[in-house]
Amino acid sequence: MEMKMDAVALQTFLERDFPQVVGDFEFVEVAPPFVTMVLLASNKHLRPGGTVSGPSMFGLVDVCAYFCILAALGPVALAVTTNCSIDFMRKPAAGRLLCRMELLKLGRTLAVCEGRIFGETAADKIVARASLTYSIPPNH
Amino acid sequence: MEMKMDAVALQTFLERDFPQVVGDFEFVEVAPPFVTMVLLASNKHLRPGGTVSGPSMFGLVDVCAYFCILAALGPVALAVTTNCSIDFMRKPAAGRLLCRMELLKLGRTLAVCEGRIFGETAADKIVARASLTYSIPPNH
Amino acid sequence: MEMKMDAVALQTFLERDFPQVVGDFEFVEVAPPFVTMVLLASNKHLRPGGTVSGPSMFGLVDVCAYFCILAALGPVALAVTTNCSIDFMRKPAAGRLLCRMELLKLGRTLAVCEGRIFGETAADKIVARASLTYSIPPNH
Amino acid sequence: MEMKMDAVALQTFLERDFPQVVGDFEFVEVAPPFVTMVLLASNKHLRPGGTVSGPSMFGLVDVCAYFCILAALGPVALAVTTNCSIDFMRKPAAGRLLCRMELLKLGRTLAVCEGRIFGETAADKIVARASLTYSIPPNH
Repeated sequence: MEMKMDAVALQTFLERDFPQVVGDFEFVEVAPPFVTMVLLASNKHLRPGGTVSGPSMFGLVDVCAYFCILAALGPVALAVTTNCSIDFMRKPAAGRLLCRMELLKLGRTLAVCEGRIFGETAADKIVARASLTYSIPPNH
Repeated sequence: MEMKMDAVALQTFLERDFPQVVGDFEFVEVAPPFVTMVLLASNKHLRPGGTVSGPSMFGLVDVCAYFCILAALGPVALAVTTNCSIDFMRKPAAGRLLCRMELLKLGRTLAVCEGRIFGETAADKIVARASLTYSIPPNH
Repeated sequence: MEMKMDAVALQTFLERDFPQVVGDFEFVEVAPPFVTMVLLASNKHLRPGGTVSGPSMFGLVDVCAYFCILAALGPVALAVTTNCSIDFMRKPAAGRLLCRMELLKLGRTLAVCEGRIFGETAADKIVARASLTYSIPPNH
Repeated sequence: MEMKMDAVALQTFLERDFPQVVGDFEFVEVAPPFVTMVLLASNKHLRPGGTVSGPSMFGLVDVCAYFCILAALGPVALAVTTNCSIDFMRKPAAGRLLCRMELLKLGRTLAVCEGRIFGETAADKIVARASLTYSIPPNH
């Protein structure tokens, strides 16, 4: 799959379109159909007991899927999430969470991604899995 | 369905367990199996174009489902989300988002909730829908 | 919501497009955005213990959502399911299963439905819930 | 992951518990946490246009996930599906559909599986993806 945007271009997009969360994420690898990102889970991402909150993990898979699509499609700012199904399997500790996302389908109007979240200190343990559908704007 | 915790008791729980987000939410009605809450969407909840972000809406349905379960079950702090499927249907503007959640099943180990998000200025338009499964800890 | 096809027209469609299963289903009510159908669960729909199988319930919500869309949109034979999330909450006995489905959004390219399955002999008990997305063909 | 049941033992289970569909499925590989099965899609599995129906593909992922759990856990006949989220991405032709399923988590009360369906004549094209949660009976 051809790469239309690399990690540097995606980082610029992240800074422009997600100013509230830009410091929370790092790109690890951009290799369509795969994009791997890290969430730097700090106090604001935690729940009682010190585990990373569901909305924070949702935010990670959502942004990672978005950049999976941009990496393959180019800068289409208006792609929007239409569906996400997410399973939380283990409680991750604060720190770095790794998300590896795959673009499974890039259609004319829909894109489908699937990915997993791992705790970086226990890379063999899956913390969560998610599948997401994005609607692609016409005439992009 | 009997009410084990009312809005005042749930608000106390919210303040204790969700200190990072307590100011973002208001209880509108607690009437098991239904709980209705509002997200006060401010700048930190927005995406480019001024619409409320996906993670913010996920946070709303997640917290509303949690309190749906607590209202019916009593103070079980350790219930955890195991699955959420959410469909985003319209882009909501900044402001107040209303979530009405229903507890469909309260089993021995699992609880299932289903709810919808509405823009408060257009109550007839559904912004999103979600279903969530929570795992109930044993010996609660 | 205007009705483009009534129960008689939908029944004709069912007989033409679903010849393998036409005898399994009955229309109970067609009133957009709602369609209510019954699955007549017989031996071929059962699992060990005499409960209705998951694929049979999936088939019920899938066909009911399809006819929800046709009732509102008219005869668009090529709408296809793109996503379904289904929660099974209780084991239904053999017999009649009732599905009440609602069309939540009918967009240009996507339609979203949500519905519940009830055992007809215990109408207050929800057996399953499901949400489905259909892709609408262009130029219909 | 240790194998508690091999393909021969699973085939015996399939014949006993799924008599209505036993001829529709073949085991390709049993290697926990993975199980690969084939659906032999015949006329009864088709929709207009000759593509395999959604309920048939749901049946494939559901049975494959069930045997994924049995392969790792041993003969626990009463595990039941509690949730499935499935995305249909391409329309598969009649013939053999291959499902490769992975057991992601085997907990005390819940098991989570994730898998993909491929058309056997186009193995690089994903037809569908699905994630499933099963409830594990206590004291198994």
